[in-house]
Amino acid sequence: MTNKKAVVLLSGGLDSATVLAIVSSAGFDICALSFDYGQRHSIELEKARMLAKKNKSVIEHRIIKLDLRAIGGSALTADIDVPKDKYAEVRGSTDIPVTYVPARNTIFLSFALGVAEVIGALDIFIGANVVDYSNYPDCRPEYLEAFERMARLATAAGIKGHNIKIHAPLLALSKDSIIKKGLELGIDYSETISCYSPATSGASCGKCDACAIRKAAFEKLNLEDPIAYD
Amino acid sequence: MTNKKAVVLLSGGLDSATVLAIVSSAGFDICALSFDYGQRHSIELEKARMLAKKNKSVIEHRIIKLDLRAIGGSALTADIDVPKDKYAEVRGSTDIPVTYVPARNTIFLSFALGVAEVIGALDIFIGANVVDYSNYPDCRPEYLEAFERMARLATAAGIKGHNIKIHAPLLALSKDSIIKKGLELGIDYSETISCYSPATSGASCGKCDACAIRKAAFEKLNLEDPIAYD
Repeated sequence: MTNKKAVVLLSGGLDSATVLAIVSSAGFDICALSFDYGQRHSIELEKARMLAKKNKSVIEHRIIKLDLRAIGGSALTADIDVPKDKYAEVRGSTDIPVTYVPARNTIFLSFALGVAEVIGALDIFIGANVVDYSNYPDCRPEYLEAFERMARLATAAGIKGHNIKIHAPLLALSKDSIIKKGLELGIDYSETISCYSPATSGASCGKCDACAIRKAAFEKLNLEDPIAYD
Repeated sequence: MTNKKAVVLLSGGLDSATVLAIVSSAGFDICALSFDYGQRHSIELEKARMLAKKNKSVIEHRIIKLDLRAIGGSALTADIDVPKDKYAEVRGSTDIPVTYVPARNTIFLSFALGVAEVIGALDIFIGANVVDYSNYPDCRPEYLEAFERMARLATAAGIKGHNIKIHAPLLALSKDSIIKKGLELGIDYSETISCYSPATSGASCGKCDACAIRKAAFEKLNLEDPIAYD
């Protein structure tokens, strides 16, 4: 008997690396999906390639080119500055940060849906997370449930009664719990990156929200973050 | 006072050309959105460009590059033959045709959602249609409603209580009713194409499902289809 297939969204960040390890340990055959979307921090893609290559459950890794810059409106894809040293100020705010990329998760999940339909997978995994600061509307459980409902109506699989599931196993975990879980599963976090605005050397800035959250989590665990900071 | 903005999905086909005219006549300022997705019938894009250029309500036309071939699984994007002279046989069938592109409408609407969010539009228009043969799961009203619900949860606009709407004004119209409506609005249908598999000259094959439906509709209206057939 062959394993069940899953599609895993793999950015190369800490969260999606952990999701990959979780799905792998659950015994799925994995189609990892990454996007070359004109992101400022394209070093992510190199990390994604390494993570996919090293994981024996990954039977294929698709990198899909798409142009989110044609949408614009985000510090991650347009000429808007990534905020530095602002995490302490914005934590607890209900504002949506400028690093929010409009409809990004919806677009990524839509591609995952298409791939799932073609390869015959019913399980799609995403590293969405609501804990710590983010306020991204498309990381909330109610959003993911609505996407799943839509996905069932959108597909041939759904019409045949095969229900596609959107899994977000990190949804309710704090960043330090995610890291702890990942370490138990043997992840080498030196192979991930979280920074929104890394140097050309690949070193993380240590100052953007993503770096601040990551650093605080490693500190909370009394562990050293194995990646290089500027 | 400025007009309300709308995002209109514009393929260059007969349906989306009609939607464009409807939205234009309703007084919206339009951001037309087309996709260069590795379609076999890329002459569509030329038609879309012309339609957008000629319509005075179109304030911008974005053509987004994306690689649906990386998904595959469809006669429109992969090396699967487009069926010819089969429309009479499949009409009334509940099978999903091989020209169905997995998750295509979901992907297109997701991009429209991102653009709407960035330009401040709350109205998205798509030429989806359930009449005549198609059986595409992502053209059904229940799918479009589920997408709309998801879209409201996905966006900053939705969080602020601004409800994004997905409009499919052709949903319940037969192809001949669509053409009649379009002619009333002054559309020149020679500027559209429907064929799934046009010749390099741009002429339509006359034999695929899309051609068969189009030809039958013009015949029903006792009108000559102004486009060239092979």
